[in-house]
Formats: sequence, structure tokens, C-alpha cells
Amino acid sequence: MIKAGIVGATGYAGQQLLWILNNHKEVKVEFISSHSFAGENIGNIYKNYKKYFEKKLISLEEIKENLDKIDVLFLALPHGMSEKITKSALENNVKVIDLGADFRLDDSEIYEKWYKVKHNYPEINKNAVYGLPELYKEKIKNTKVVASPGCYPTSAILGVAPLLKNGLVDTKKIVVDSKSGVSGAGRSAKLDLIYAEVNENFKAYNVLKHRHTPEIKQEMDKLANGNINLVFTPHLLPINRGILSTIYLDVKDEFKESLTEEKIYEIYNEFYKNEYFVRVTENLPEIKNVKNSNICEIGVRYDKEFGNIVVVSAIDNLIKGAGGQAVQSMNILFGFEENEGLEFLSMYL
Amino acid sequence: MIKAGIVGATGYAGQQLLWILNNHKEVKVEFISSHSFAGENIGNIYKNYKKYFEKKLISLEEIKENLDKIDVLFLALPHGMSEKITKSALENNVKVIDLGADFRLDDSEIYEKWYKVKHNYPEINKNAVYGLPELYKEKIKNTKVVASPGCYPTSAILGVAPLLKNGLVDTKKIVVDSKSGVSGAGRSAKLDLIYAEVNENFKAYNVLKHRHTPEIKQEMDKLANGNINLVFTPHLLPINRGILSTIYLDVKDEFKESLTEEKIYEIYNEFYKNEYFVRVTENLPEIKNVKNSNICEIGVRYDKEFGNIVVVSAIDNLIKGAGGQAVQSMNILFGFEENEGLEFLSMYL
Amino acid sequence: MIKAGIVGATGYAGQQLLWILNNHKEVKVEFISSHSFAGENIGNIYKNYKKYFEKKLISLEEIKENLDKIDVLFLALPHGMSEKITKSALENNVKVIDLGADFRLDDSEIYEKWYKVKHNYPEINKNAVYGLPELYKEKIKNTKVVASPGCYPTSAILGVAPLLKNGLVDTKKIVVDSKSGVSGAGRSAKLDLIYAEVNENFKAYNVLKHRHTPEIKQEMDKLANGNINLVFTPHLLPINRGILSTIYLDVKDEFKESLTEEKIYEIYNEFYKNEYFVRVTENLPEIKNVKNSNICEIGVRYDKEFGNIVVVSAIDNLIKGAGGQAVQSMNILFGFEENEGLEFLSMYL
Amino acid sequence: MIKAGIVGATGYAGQQLLWILNNHKEVKVEFISSHSFAGENIGNIYKNYKKYFEKKLISLEEIKENLDKIDVLFLALPHGMSEKITKSALENNVKVIDLGADFRLDDSEIYEKWYKVKHNYPEINKNAVYGLPELYKEKIKNTKVVASPGCYPTSAILGVAPLLKNGLVDTKKIVVDSKSGVSGAGRSAKLDLIYAEVNENFKAYNVLKHRHTPEIKQEMDKLANGNINLVFTPHLLPINRGILSTIYLDVKDEFKESLTEEKIYEIYNEFYKNEYFVRVTENLPEIKNVKNSNICEIGVRYDKEFGNIVVVSAIDNLIKGAGGQAVQSMNILFGFEENEGLEFLSMYL
Repeated sequence: MIKAGIVGATGYAGQQLLWILNNHKEVKVEFISSHSFAGENIGNIYKNYKKYFEKKLISLEEIKENLDKIDVLFLALPHGMSEKITKSALENNVKVIDLGADFRLDDSEIYEKWYKVKHNYPEINKNAVYGLPELYKEKIKNTKVVASPGCYPTSAILGVAPLLKNGLVDTKKIVVDSKSGVSGAGRSAKLDLIYAEVNENFKAYNVLKHRHTPEIKQEMDKLANGNINLVFTPHLLPINRGILSTIYLDVKDEFKESLTEEKIYEIYNEFYKNEYFVRVTENLPEIKNVKNSNICEIGVRYDKEFGNIVVVSAIDNLIKGAGGQAVQSMNILFGFEENEGLEFLSMYL
Repeated sequence: MIKAGIVGATGYAGQQLLWILNNHKEVKVEFISSHSFAGENIGNIYKNYKKYFEKKLISLEEIKENLDKIDVLFLALPHGMSEKITKSALENNVKVIDLGADFRLDDSEIYEKWYKVKHNYPEINKNAVYGLPELYKEKIKNTKVVASPGCYPTSAILGVAPLLKNGLVDTKKIVVDSKSGVSGAGRSAKLDLIYAEVNENFKAYNVLKHRHTPEIKQEMDKLANGNINLVFTPHLLPINRGILSTIYLDVKDEFKESLTEEKIYEIYNEFYKNEYFVRVTENLPEIKNVKNSNICEIGVRYDKEFGNIVVVSAIDNLIKGAGGQAVQSMNILFGFEENEGLEFLSMYL
Repeated sequence: MIKAGIVGATGYAGQQLLWILNNHKEVKVEFISSHSFAGENIGNIYKNYKKYFEKKLISLEEIKENLDKIDVLFLALPHGMSEKITKSALENNVKVIDLGADFRLDDSEIYEKWYKVKHNYPEINKNAVYGLPELYKEKIKNTKVVASPGCYPTSAILGVAPLLKNGLVDTKKIVVDSKSGVSGAGRSAKLDLIYAEVNENFKAYNVLKHRHTPEIKQEMDKLANGNINLVFTPHLLPINRGILSTIYLDVKDEFKESLTEEKIYEIYNEFYKNEYFVRVTENLPEIKNVKNSNICEIGVRYDKEFGNIVVVSAIDNLIKGAGGQAVQSMNILFGFEENEGLEFLSMYL
Repeated sequence: MIKAGIVGATGYAGQQLLWILNNHKEVKVEFISSHSFAGENIGNIYKNYKKYFEKKLISLEEIKENLDKIDVLFLALPHGMSEKITKSALENNVKVIDLGADFRLDDSEIYEKWYKVKHNYPEINKNAVYGLPELYKEKIKNTKVVASPGCYPTSAILGVAPLLKNGLVDTKKIVVDSKSGVSGAGRSAKLDLIYAEVNENFKAYNVLKHRHTPEIKQEMDKLANGNINLVFTPHLLPINRGILSTIYLDVKDEFKESLTEEKIYEIYNEFYKNEYFVRVTENLPEIKNVKNSNICEIGVRYDKEFGNIVVVSAIDNLIKGAGGQAVQSMNILFGFEENEGLEFLSMYL
């Protein structure tokens, strides 16, 4: 049994993480912290917990004095806020799993360019491991800081990793067209997030300038060992949770003739054969098959005539795209079964 | 051709009113005004208008100097803000149609008790006419100030008027259980209105203390010539627009035996025979039949054994419950056809 | 570890039950059966199970030969279909938990009148126990057939039981105005259930003639020891799951003065003090607080002036209103902890 | 005043068309026809019309005898059913506007390959004009048969026409990633269309094999004067109406340096300067800006570094993508103002 603290527990990602840890038989949630709701009981902010999980939220200032009580600290904070807390945690021998963006980009300059924030302790970033367990399981085992991936990047990278790793596709253009449920925008009172504005609507946003772009590109480049022209477009879906990414790739000319849809499926099945949370499916993925679960569902279609590949990848943005993936890394980090506390499936409805 | 001004044009009711007036062949929208967005073009706030209806929003302060250009002023403001502007308008010989609550209650004390605001010019309130055309057409013709009804009251009062007017039901308890789309809560950035909080949710709110209660009671009391024990419960529906009220009444003992569902329908059909915007239907009303239209749809069921009557009444809260009804009153006030500019039906989807 | 069979596993209630049993550490799902999808793998019908729970659906005919392998049989079938299978099960010493309507009504004549089906083995009905654990825990322990309550009745009866049991309210009229998510209508391809017809719509249906009426009345009558004039109106909400019932009662004249909202809450808290799955809340209940959980959330408002009580009660129709409640009864029946396998809370979104 | 008949008036496209024609001051709807609901009153099928537009639906067989009463016949039928009726209409000197797919493809072989149906009267197809008024206004004026475009093709073709026509982009790959509201799937009782299956879900379908692919390609090829590698992916949005297409193109190397986003906007504004129904917008398009209207909204983003262009294009699938566009063609065909009866804007909510 380990003890955990959650910082940013009242955001949508944070509360999802709390939900999971609360059911995890190897973890005790020692404290929860919130900037906006410090001093209040979680059961009054999220009434789903009332009577069943009651705990007072501590302020960000009170975290420091509680670090000696925990083994692992989860951070679910806006970018730029994780560095300092991470430093304190490390000094207290507490491992950190950061759900935010602060340690995801290897190159501090790129981070600074896209996020307009500096790394004050670049060595933390240097030693952090990108917490996508399907790619970096061994590294996660031995790190002290896990940078848990963004939601869009998780769906995109898992969707194409087998193709890139096997050198099957061109790098001169990959299009990632992603659609996310509204919880991805966080729990904040903004006019463009109110129900009547989002309902019966659909839109693209931050076209060609979304901050997940360099993160996706970084991982795709590594997988392909190249410099990809990546076009990433996020869209806002009128649903609560879930991301579906449709990804367009071109088979390298040399493989166009010999490749078939069947062979692509073989490659995917081989690549993910030991990955509990990936379901390669011959059907086309749907959000309802994965929502409220830690599963990533992937399907592929191939048009030999033109060498076009279309990959569809679906996850729950708050679980595999945030809280669930963080717990998956924690399980690896602390030597638990990788799927401990994460075996719940989608309820379909 | 008359000229109109709209104050509060960027709220949901105000923009709906603008939509209607913009299509009305007897009206020119002379100015639009907004507290929050003064100085901006309406096409940047509501992009549905862009290219097709461009006009700069003036501030509340600029209204006064524009009153001499118009014949009628529409107010779609939070309660307590209409009185002063109305006074100025009347001094300029401009007729006023107020979509807010300031002049709906005959009794200033009751207004003060429920809304915590005083009437500074009680004579305005005294001379205002409650703008429910199906009940007060003649009075509307001759007034200078129309107090356009609330959305819930419109659905409730039209739903039961024939029963009360004909003295068929008990006054000792009438239950109005109403369900409204989210636009009824207005266009404001509040946490409990954001999409992920409202979607896949349903709740009652302000139980036993919603401000539309005295308005419904006032009109029902007048119709029944009595003092009704009214219980009104509003609920928040995860849809954009529409109100459906389910109303529970008891037939007076003396009529229990002789009354039938058929006779009730006869009474309703007779009562509303000249009312263009009321559709008495033997089917049960549904919001999709009336949304995006100025129609009120009413159906009734009767259980003779216990004398229970259930009335179902549906409207579009932004049209028959706000902007459309205001234009219906304007048509009456200025001698146009009552349905001029209001003939559009629901598109069903 | 006991073994269970599920009949009707591909309806929405059946699949929800399967989801729960699949996670229940004291139960092994031995077989699943379906009329429409016999011979297919559940993972092809509900793709959320694919890879993680694969099992072939057997036909209704094949159940008989599998009865000797199980301890308990769950039935999630249209009314009129449970009796015969139950008889076979009992002959094989298998306990039955029926999620359908066949054994819910004590009086076979009332069953016949409302459901247009006869009881062929009335003694089964006679010995069945109404499976609402909060009221009948002791009886459930010793029965062989549990008639698991309907979804609407569960929300309504739990909502008012403390008031009726304590003799506080009039029986001359109780109004139950209920709103249900669409999954309550089942998984069937009907025109009025397709997305574009339900979305952005809201309606009442089966007004004064819904089949859950006699079930609600039966239990309320028993609690109040009287003959209640019950008016029950179901409505269709454009959400997937959840029921919220708003219930209108009148305090008996003798208690009107002395009663307060505070006292009512005391009565509720006392009545449900040992009930794990009931959350009495001073807030008004909301569907999002209970969905995807087995919890019933109840709040009350009281208007002393007129003696009006309004109760709001919320459940997840597929869990506390179907699959979860059935498992709760199973836990009691087999001596497991009552909340075993049912401790998951709402994920809020 | 001309007279019109509508065949297939009870599908979603057909009823939308009826809604528009019913408000069109130059048209009288002489008859409406339906395969499934012949003999019934339209007000019983679509209750939004009840009381306000009552007309009996005639059967497909009765159309012939009514052809002499009309000037124009609208067909909203499944593919393969328009040819024969068109022939009869033409023999009666009635002009035909077909909302179906039968006459959209110039090449009968391609039609046959994708739709598995033969053209029996290929000369009809040969003389039909593709009814996209923004590209073929002059041709529409002089035809007898208008093949009104598909919904996806309308959004895609209008989105890229200025780029293709000006020879700015590569033809070696254009990706059209489209998302459509559910009404696009028609009004039919299918399991995968029921509310609980579509709600809170999102999926791609018919990947690499949707029938609108050859139609989009045909028109893009003509515009670009080339042979485009088109990848088209349709998705199902949980909303009632609207299509948003995100389109990915590559600027030709020769223009990469000199092109800017500003110049692209100039090109679009010039191309569409006389087109009433196209709104080129610097904001990114959203479905709520165009729904319930005949407007197509288009925005563009350009990344000079890689020469990536992203176009976003939004329409209402039932209006600009079906009934509205058909009426636009009718207006042109009969010499009315092009926007007659089509000036209504989105109501935003």
C-alpha cells in the first residue's frame, strides 16, 4: 500500500484521477489539493463523492508540509505550475507523476516557444520520462518524474506507432484530425463553453497552432527517425468525454504494392501483443467502446491504388488521456500489475 | 413601417427578438444596444448575422439620444433595469415592450418581496398590460407599456386557462412541473452552465422559490377568481430551447362524473378557436413540434375515477416565451396582422 | 464463488447487469443468453467487451440444459416471458432474480389487467419477494424468486417511503412526475427512438396509463396503509441514463404546523441510516451525481404555509433501477456484503 | 406563382424542402408524395405542420396523374428511383430537381460502379446539370433536370473551389475529413441510429468507400483540371443537423513562398463576391453559425513553412446540403431572385 497526494484534484482530470485512486487497492489517497476550492470538502464540489468519500481539500501552500506522508504526488495543473512543486517533492524523495505539459518536451526551447514559459530547473525536464507506457515501459520503471502525455498525443501516437516504427510511411505529410469531448477544455466558466453554445455545434479550433502539436511531432519523429511534416487539427465535440483521431498517412512507394490491409493488421497486432490497454479492432473504433475506460481502440483502412492509409484511434480523454494513464505509469513505477485498478470497461452507455 | 430599438440585444432572448424583427416586413431595427458588448458589431458577437445583418451595438447611455428615432422600444434586461428606461421612452412618446419582470406583477409589494427591488415609478407598473395576447388582446391594443410574460408562466397559464376560466377545477392545489431548455438560464459564463455539467444531467432548481411563481399564481387566480395553492417546480433540460409543463389539477367534485376527455377538448378548442398561435392537440405535445416557432401546443388527459386532469403544454421559451410573444404584442399594438413576421413553423429537427 | 446465468443479456439492462457481474469477485458468469443474438459473441454485439470478455450467447432453448451449472439465474426479458423459465430454474434448485415485471404485482388480476398476460403459475408470483432491499431485506434473504422493481417505481418508492411509513402525508393525491433517460425504452429499432427524433426534444408519454403505475401504487399503499390516488407521469429525457422523479405530497393537516424541513430530513436520515445506497442530501438531487452508480439520491423541500412537500429522487435507471439492484438482492440472498461489486461511484461526467 | 410537387416528402430532406416551399411566395405546393405514408396527412407524420399546413400524401403511383398540374417536380428518393419518374415528368414538360444521386455523376459507369444500379435512360443523365449554383448558375438556367449535389460534396467542393480553380494546390493528395449530423443518415428505424447508440458517441464510417467520394472527386478534378488523389472520410456527429468539413491541401511548391493567408482570403473573397449564400470568414466556421440556413461558411489557415493549407467549411446538411440548395436552383431555373424564400439566417441556438 502506497500513499498518494493529488494536486489539482477539482479539475476534470484531477477528479477522474481521484475516482481511480479511490478504488485502487494498493493506494491510499493521503491528501487532495485545490487552488480554487481549498478548505472545502470534495463532496461539496463533486457531489458524486458525498457520503462515500469525504476529504477536505488543502491549499497549494499546505502541500509542502504533507510531502513526507506520501510516496507519490500527482499533479494536474495548468502548464508552468508543476516545476516548483516537483522540485520540492523530489527533495522529499517523493515520486512525481505530472499530468500537465511541463516535462513532456525534450527540448526546453520548443517548450518555451509553444508555452511561453521557461524551464527554471531544466535538469528535472531532462530526467523526466514521457509516460506513454506502451512505448516507454522500461524507462518509466526507473524514473522519478513521469511526464504523462497529453490526451490528443496519446490517441495520435498510439494510432501510428506501428507504422512509423516499421518505417512503412512517408514523413513528408501526416495529417492528424482529432475530435475531443468538451471535458478536454477543463472545468472553467467561459462563455464559449456554456451548454447552449456547445450543444448542436461543432468546430475546429487553434488550427495549425495547438500546443499538442510539438508533442505529437516529437514522438512521431522519434518513432520514424525523421522530421515529419505534421498537420494537427483539434475539434470540439458536443459530448462529455472521448477523443477520436482520424489520421492520414502515405505508404512509402516501395511498399505500396506489397502492402495489404491484412498485413497492416498483423503489424499492429504484433506491435501491441503485450499491451493490455490497446485493442486493435477490425471494426472502426467508436468513442462509446472506450469511454469510461483506460482502453485505446485502433482500426486501419488501406487503399492500395493510391497508397492511402487511414487510421482511426479512440480513447477516453480523461482516463487513457489523463488520469488512467497516470495510474498506469504509477503501477509500473511501483511494481504493481500494470492494469491494477484500471480494469473497468466502458459501460457502453 | 415602424422603427424599433432593442435594449439587451445580445442576451439569448434579445438576439432571438432581433432575428424576428430583422425578418418583419413592417419593422426597421433602428438601433440595438448592449451593456456588455457596446461598441462591437452584432456580427462579431453572434456570427450567424455576419455579412447579412451588420450593426454596431450602442451603450445603454446612448439610448436616450436615440429615442426620438423610434416608435417602439423592446427591453430584454435583468429585472430592476427596465423602469428608468421605460420612463424616458414614455416621455419621448415611444411605446415600450418589456421582456423582463419589472411590470408583470400587479402588486408592487409582491414584486418587491420576490425580486428584492422597489418600484420607483409605480404608476408605470399600474398602467402596464400583461402581454399575453391570448388573454389580454384588447388591453394590449390600447396600452403604452406591455409587460411581456415570463417563459414558464406562458406555458403554464395557456395550459390551464380554459379549465380555470370555466370554473371546472379545484383551487386547493395545482401542481405545475416545468422543464426548460438551458437558454432560459441566459447567456452567462457560470460554472453550473458549462456543457459538461449540464449534458447528460437533469435537475430541479429553486424548488418552491422560483420567481415565476407569483406571476403564474396572479394570472391563475384571476382566471379562477380564487386563491390557488400553486406548487411550481422548474427543471433544467439538457436541450437548447423549449419548455414543457406538466400540470396536475383536480376536477371539482360536482363535475367529476359528467366530465370526459372529449368535453375537455371541446372546451379548449372553443376557448382557443380564434388564437392563431395555440394548437390544441389530441396527441401529447412535444418540444420538437414547437421549437423555433411562436406556437403553444396543448394536450389534456383525464381520469374520471379520481377526477385527475393532466395538462401538457409546450412552447419555445425564446419565442412564444420571449421574443416572439413580444412581437405578437407589437403587432397588436400597432395594428398589424397578429401573426405578421411570426408564421415560421418548427423545422422539426 | 457462485455461478450465474443471464437471460436477455443483450438488452440495455442485461448488458449493464453483465458489466457488474463481470467485476463481481464472488460471481462467475457461467452463461449468457439472448433471443436476438444467439450464437454470436457478446464482444461483437457490445464492442466494449471485445478482447476483455468474450463469450458466446446461447439461445433461450439452450438455457434448460445449462441450469445445473448455475446457482442463480437473472432474467431481463419482456413481460410475460419469465414465468416458464423461472419454473424450470426452481425445479433445478436455481434461485431466480427477475428484472422484468412478471412477479412484481401481488395481485394477479391487476397484473393481468395492466399487462394483458395471465399468470400460469400463480404460486410462483405468490412466493416471489419484491426486491427493493431498502424495504424488504429480510424477506429477500429467504426467498427463491426475487422480483426486482421497475426503474420508475424504485425512484418513486424510495423517495417517499419515510413520509408514508410515518403517516405524515395525505393519501388523497400523490403526484409522481418522472423523467427518464432513453435507455429505459430499451434497445430496439423504433422510429420514435432514433437520435434525431429524441435529441433536442422532450415529451410526456403514456400519461395516466403507464404500466409502472400499479406497482408504485401497490408499494405506496402498503407503506401508507391506505388507498392512494396516485398520478404518475413518465417523460422521455434526451440523455442516455438516469431517472429523476419530482413527487408532490400534502402533509396531513394535523402535522402542518409542527413539521419543518429540518424534521423531514431527520425522518429521512433515520429511515435510511443503515442503507448504504441511499444518499439523503440537503442539496437537490441531480442525475449526474448518481449515474453509473447504484446510489439513490433524495432531497426534500417543504412549504409550511400550504403544507406542500416536494421530494426529488434520482437514480441510474440501468443500475439502481435494474442491474445494480438485482445484484444488491443477489448479495443479500447469498450472504455477501450488500455492496459487494457495487461500490463504484458516478464518474460525474 | 409556380406549382410544385414533392416526392419523398416525409424523409428529413423532403420535409425540410416542404418547409421552405411552404414559405416561398412564388411557389404553391400542389402535391406531396410518400412511399411509406401514402394516404396519411403530413400533419400526422410531422406534427410541426398540424393545423398550419394540412395535406394528404399521395402514393408514388398517383404522381403520374398529377404531373399536368405542376411546373416543377422535386425528388427526394433513395438512389435508383428517380430515373423513371423523371422521364414521366419530362414527357409532361415538368422540370425536375432531383435531390438524390441518380444524375450527379457524368460518367454512367462510375455511377454504376459505386451505386450498383444502371442508368436506363442515360440521355437524362447526360443532359442533367449538377446543381451547385455557385459553380453552374448559367447552366442551371437552361436545363430541364437539376441534379442537386450531395451534402458532403457541397461542403467540400465549395470549400476548395477557389484554390483549385486558381491552380494553387497539388493534386497528389487532398484529404477531406467531414463530420455530419445524424439527420444525414435519414429517417429510418435502424439500431445504430437510436438515441442511446449515437449520443455521447462519435465514429468514422464507410472509410475509403463512401458513395460521395466519386462526386467530390469529379467536381474537384474539373476545377483543378487534373486527377486528384482524394481521401474522403465521413463521421457521425451527435447533433441533428450540420456538416463541417476540414480539408487538407498542399500548396504547389512554386507558390509556397509567395502565398500568404491574407492572399488566400483575397482569392476566396474575389471568387465568391457575387455569391449570396457563401460567407468567407476570418474566424473559423462553426455549425451553429449556419444551421437552419442556406449559408456555407468558409475559413482558411496557411502554414507557409510546410505549405500546408487547412480549409474549414460548414453548411446545414438539410438546407444548403439538400432542400435549400434545390430551391436555390429552382429560383435560378424559373427566374426568381436567387435568395427568394431562402433568406432566413441561423437562429444561433
